[in-house]
Amino acid sequence: MLDSIKESPLFPIANPRSLAFFGASNNYTTMGTMQFLSMKSLGYPGAVYPVHPREKDVQGYKAYQSVMDLPETPDLAIMVLPTRLVAQTMDECGRKGIRHAIVISGGFKEVGEEGARMEEELKQTAARWGIRFVGPNCIGVANPHHKLNPTPFPYEGRPGYIGLASQSGSFVTQMFDYLRPMGLGFSTAFSVGNESNIDIVDCLEYFGACEHTRVIALYIEGIRRGRAFIETARKIVPNKPVAAFYIGGSEAGKRAGFSHTGALSGPDDLYNGIFRQSGVIRAGSITELFDFCWALGGLSAPGGRGVAIQTHSGGPGANAADAISRAGLELANLSETTKNELRPFFPPTASINNPVDMTFSRNSSDLFSKIPRILLNDPRVHTLLIYLISQGRMMVRPMQAMGLSAEQIAEQSRKALEGQADGLIDLRRTIDKPLVGYTYGGLSDPMHQYLITGGVPVFPSPERAAAAIKALVAYHEIVKKIKS
Amino acid sequence: MLDSIKESPLFPIANPRSLAFFGASNNYTTMGTMQFLSMKSLGYPGAVYPVHPREKDVQGYKAYQSVMDLPETPDLAIMVLPTRLVAQTMDECGRKGIRHAIVISGGFKEVGEEGARMEEELKQTAARWGIRFVGPNCIGVANPHHKLNPTPFPYEGRPGYIGLASQSGSFVTQMFDYLRPMGLGFSTAFSVGNESNIDIVDCLEYFGACEHTRVIALYIEGIRRGRAFIETARKIVPNKPVAAFYIGGSEAGKRAGFSHTGALSGPDDLYNGIFRQSGVIRAGSITELFDFCWALGGLSAPGGRGVAIQTHSGGPGANAADAISRAGLELANLSETTKNELRPFFPPTASINNPVDMTFSRNSSDLFSKIPRILLNDPRVHTLLIYLISQGRMMVRPMQAMGLSAEQIAEQSRKALEGQADGLIDLRRTIDKPLVGYTYGGLSDPMHQYLITGGVPVFPSPERAAAAIKALVAYHEIVKKIKS
Repeated sequence: MLDSIKESPLFPIANPRSLAFFGASNNYTTMGTMQFLSMKSLGYPGAVYPVHPREKDVQGYKAYQSVMDLPETPDLAIMVLPTRLVAQTMDECGRKGIRHAIVISGGFKEVGEEGARMEEELKQTAARWGIRFVGPNCIGVANPHHKLNPTPFPYEGRPGYIGLASQSGSFVTQMFDYLRPMGLGFSTAFSVGNESNIDIVDCLEYFGACEHTRVIALYIEGIRRGRAFIETARKIVPNKPVAAFYIGGSEAGKRAGFSHTGALSGPDDLYNGIFRQSGVIRAGSITELFDFCWALGGLSAPGGRGVAIQTHSGGPGANAADAISRAGLELANLSETTKNELRPFFPPTASINNPVDMTFSRNSSDLFSKIPRILLNDPRVHTLLIYLISQGRMMVRPMQAMGLSAEQIAEQSRKALEGQADGLIDLRRTIDKPLVGYTYGGLSDPMHQYLITGGVPVFPSPERAAAAIKALVAYHEIVKKIKS
Repeated sequence: MLDSIKESPLFPIANPRSLAFFGASNNYTTMGTMQFLSMKSLGYPGAVYPVHPREKDVQGYKAYQSVMDLPETPDLAIMVLPTRLVAQTMDECGRKGIRHAIVISGGFKEVGEEGARMEEELKQTAARWGIRFVGPNCIGVANPHHKLNPTPFPYEGRPGYIGLASQSGSFVTQMFDYLRPMGLGFSTAFSVGNESNIDIVDCLEYFGACEHTRVIALYIEGIRRGRAFIETARKIVPNKPVAAFYIGGSEAGKRAGFSHTGALSGPDDLYNGIFRQSGVIRAGSITELFDFCWALGGLSAPGGRGVAIQTHSGGPGANAADAISRAGLELANLSETTKNELRPFFPPTASINNPVDMTFSRNSSDLFSKIPRILLNDPRVHTLLIYLISQGRMMVRPMQAMGLSAEQIAEQSRKALEGQADGLIDLRRTIDKPLVGYTYGGLSDPMHQYLITGGVPVFPSPERAAAAIKALVAYHEIVKKIKS
């Protein structure tokens, strides 16, 4: 494990004070230009030196004909160049004193023998100068905390706490928008490409030491350094959860991964063994990977597998009970104390079970504050899972019928939903147990967004909520075992 | 099987020419009023007679003190009344000549002994008059084709082709908004509640004969008439697919279902047997249930399990290959003819495999028309799965940098995405094979919405696409077996 993040070769790559950019121009349709524009629009504050053989300036920045002409030695070189120019450019960067690079360009090992030869040349050139680099055949690096985003897609969300190392560039850039409705974002995301010099293990080490990173996500087609992976992950896991999505375990995934990045995969069993030894939580899809990150990075440690479900609707409650049970969690057996405290909220004849079905109650302070508090205070309840719909949604039409204006309706609905949500957000802040919402469908509803911003994750199905809670429980069981 | 849908007791319930409504008032906060307002706002065109002991009019409709005062005998009575008034009201309806009803009111069998006694009384009263009814303890019926929606939630989508029978009212009303981004809607949805008189088997029969219904969805906590279910489903399945989500198979699901609707569930094995005998496709979640409906109702019959994946990005392609393989489908082994036809679109050294990775191509006519056409024409390719991102999204920033106005950018983006999508939509219309898109995250992107409207489903993950294709393949294998 690193003593300081500054020891990592990735530190100057993710946090450069200045950079040289090869491959941007004033032609808007090239990949290099698009990446340059993404970087510019996020407002990267360091010095930027476009290098271009002919242009005098590039996108408003003074351009240089050769890297040798730069007024200083930048921390980082970013290359979006034709394959055949990369090794030579790397050599010039070395001569200038640059020691870190990102090679976006593809056309290397992943396309065949001639590409493999060029990749070898690139490696040797870099080694000669002691240059550490990410890529080739990658989509770059995004560190929103440093306002650095030289990828082809704009980063419009907030900086976040997920550190991603991905053997696919798409799972960096396509996740920018994906994470936003969940209130999530990247601390830093590395697209590692062919891992010619820097690999996923280096990324793990970096994230282990990165203060912005609360949880580490990995997209893996094949691990090149198995032993180093296990050793590094084992050291990090007690302090920081690691989740991984591995696709090389099926025959089709294996072949597709190989032709993508030349990664050597292995059967599921082998990788399950690697993950078990390293304490890494395996996800079954990209969806799960980030769901797990949400739970692992955003929720308190549950004391066990007991879950209480609160619902105001039978079907969604039964569905969640089924999902919890199938995920290997337990429906908490509510204590007598809890049942007695809940009694006044129910009709005299109703039986009080888990799921706690509040069909009878129309009082939002009961639903969003008093009852969840009673449940969270039950020592057998380790996690509270609560069904959410937008109560406000149902009220719109009656308010319209009452003749309220659109503004009045919006204001009344906002007040109503915030009043409800604040109850849960307060519980989330004051009681140290996981509190998780679920609903069906999208998260765009204002109530869900308000809760998410307040720190209560809302999953779009009970199955996704159950799987995420299970991942959280599994992680803390691992940590307990390691520490005991 | 019914000779005509008009033989079904559910016909006048879902298609009433006139109705009496018990329980709406001018108090906006009651459930009855909210349901009345939903119905009014969808524009139900039949005669509506609110019955209220004191009000002279209800929400703009002339009110009647007693059902006996109505100027005609309506087709249907809808009751949102206190439990103790229901049986007596049913009796009065019988005396008036009404023969069909929906009983929304709860407080019956599901709450205990006294409730069970009242439910028995209700059943006997109805039987005395020959009244057929849905409920009690349900949320009503929605038939958007008839503009009928007496549920508490507004129906704002289009009428659709999914017939839903649900033992939970939430999975009727919460799905109104859920289905919209998928371009889906209900033909009719029945919330069956305690199934005191009309049950899920009656709904199956109705949907079997309903011309608006292309696929039948069931949410099941327990089947009361197992043999009738199997016999009815078996007759329908060769002509119309049926998908079911059953939650009673886990211990927790079983208990929760029982306290919800008093349904008697059974172990997973028993229900798997019932579904297998009836040719019903089992879904693992509400999400899957409607994903399956999308594929089953919206796609051509695939000739087999072979899938071709087209991508412009390695990771998503490899992820889809893995998902297809794990779902029990096969990556089609492309024919030599296909490979030869694809050759001109690739660099000379590139190998052509499935997934077909078009990283190299920037030409949208190749990507969205020529290449998918070649793949669809390969006899080994039974389904084409294509990775989609919004290409337009990447172009916004360059267009901004070029100084285009917001309107120009919107117009250019719209044109670009429609030009691309039209290629696929044309293939969907002219080639009789399933064509399915996948992406990561939401479906709100204009490109995805345009494709969906054009008949190309876009799933928010490759795993969901793979599971839906698998359901489609399984259904057509069942039909083939039955017919052979």
